[in-house]
Amino acid sequence: MTTQALIEQIRIKKSFLCIGLDVDLNKIPQHLLATEDPIFEFNKAIIDATHHLCVSYKPNTAFYEAYGLKGWESLEKTIQYLNTNYPEIYTIADAKRGDIGNTSTMYAKAFLEDLAFDSVTVAPYMGKDSVEPFLAFKDKHTIMLALTSNKGAFDFQTLETNGQELYKQVLETSKSWENSENLMYVVGATKAEYFKEIRKIVPNSFLLVPGVGAQGGNLQDVCKYGMSDNVGLLINSSRGIIYAGNDEEFSQAAASKAKELQEQMEEILINRL
Amino acid sequence: MTTQALIEQIRIKKSFLCIGLDVDLNKIPQHLLATEDPIFEFNKAIIDATHHLCVSYKPNTAFYEAYGLKGWESLEKTIQYLNTNYPEIYTIADAKRGDIGNTSTMYAKAFLEDLAFDSVTVAPYMGKDSVEPFLAFKDKHTIMLALTSNKGAFDFQTLETNGQELYKQVLETSKSWENSENLMYVVGATKAEYFKEIRKIVPNSFLLVPGVGAQGGNLQDVCKYGMSDNVGLLINSSRGIIYAGNDEEFSQAAASKAKELQEQMEEILINRL
Repeated sequence: MTTQALIEQIRIKKSFLCIGLDVDLNKIPQHLLATEDPIFEFNKAIIDATHHLCVSYKPNTAFYEAYGLKGWESLEKTIQYLNTNYPEIYTIADAKRGDIGNTSTMYAKAFLEDLAFDSVTVAPYMGKDSVEPFLAFKDKHTIMLALTSNKGAFDFQTLETNGQELYKQVLETSKSWENSENLMYVVGATKAEYFKEIRKIVPNSFLLVPGVGAQGGNLQDVCKYGMSDNVGLLINSSRGIIYAGNDEEFSQAAASKAKELQEQMEEILINRL
Repeated sequence: MTTQALIEQIRIKKSFLCIGLDVDLNKIPQHLLATEDPIFEFNKAIIDATHHLCVSYKPNTAFYEAYGLKGWESLEKTIQYLNTNYPEIYTIADAKRGDIGNTSTMYAKAFLEDLAFDSVTVAPYMGKDSVEPFLAFKDKHTIMLALTSNKGAFDFQTLETNGQELYKQVLETSKSWENSENLMYVVGATKAEYFKEIRKIVPNSFLLVPGVGAQGGNLQDVCKYGMSDNVGLLINSSRGIIYAGNDEEFSQAAASKAKELQEQMEEILINRL
């Protein structure tokens, strides 16, 4: 999906919500465990109930790899279900990959070509030649970690380097990479005051923002400092939505939570655009 | 496997060689493509022919994920084959993972518990709480990227921060993490002169060293500057060994290349220990 098509979807749906499909068998409604593929059944129900309220879904690969072959199969079925039934949805493989050039090419092929996700998250530590193989895919995005939402973000990401924090250096440097127009960045919502600084470096790039809700970030603050002329934000919520209910009506409970966020987003969009 | 058991294996085999199982279907002997699981058949043949010359195997997960479900199955069969037939071998899942705490726990479970690798590689960018879940596993190691062997290593890893390069800060900081005795580090062989500095920070830690051979690193130089009292090095070679031959005799060709490296290592060990 192109950036323009994503922006169009945000305008149509009045939502820039991304729902994280981080499925833990210990947390899903117990009646699903009797089905042949509980993870996929859970995802399918959540997707069917919420697809009109969000523009994006983001399975985190860790939750699928944790179930081995079976988990990988659930991931494949989930992305196929999305691509077949809801082609207007922007899909993100939250994989945080990154390796030397020829190896990154294998990861890029796996997620962007074979599984046909619209985008994949990557880690910046190994630099340019570890990320450029992902950027080479046309009409796909590479979403690079910049400033994450966890405590450990302050271990290295905010260290002073060349007169500015490392995450700013990461943003700055990445702008010179080949096909850098295909870059988006992960910026945690728990640090709303940082968005102002970040927008000075990447005024128009899309930012994928985890940490609203469960991790304590505030939607209004993030939008105040982080929104660009083209919205430029995908706000992710995982646990707060998908585990809102735990009985037969779980997908309706998820839809209610998603609706709350969508309505807040609609209000923000009306006032801003 | 404990660090002590690994050191014992190095002494018995007079080798600190790790063989990278980075299997690309375009590069393996064509006659294997007719088998049901060419990747596993290739690995099995390489392992059977070289296990006495090395102490470790390291499949890079990218090469398996690139083949989807089938690839994940080949990875499972490979680690099962190793754990069943060669329990004295130290296994490394080269996955370069890292995420927020509860998600890293899922990755750690996948690679260290379910697949039962002895160790897994991780990326440091997200800091302490992204790595500690891996360190919590007893008698397992977490191998963190410090200074990689690719060109992009100079984009961020060598930036000056707090008066020293970032990779040194990563080494230094990680020593204070819980269960840090379970840490090893990735240090590229292409930068032999750096090993002296690294040993000042982590005198005893094991270093996993890619980049000897194909990427231009020199074994003697790495050992001169990088070897600790307990050897403390695992030298990885992938393409240089596994693709040494391309016909029916490919595993013997791989064994010859592995033997060359093992003999060089034996000579170094005799002179040093």
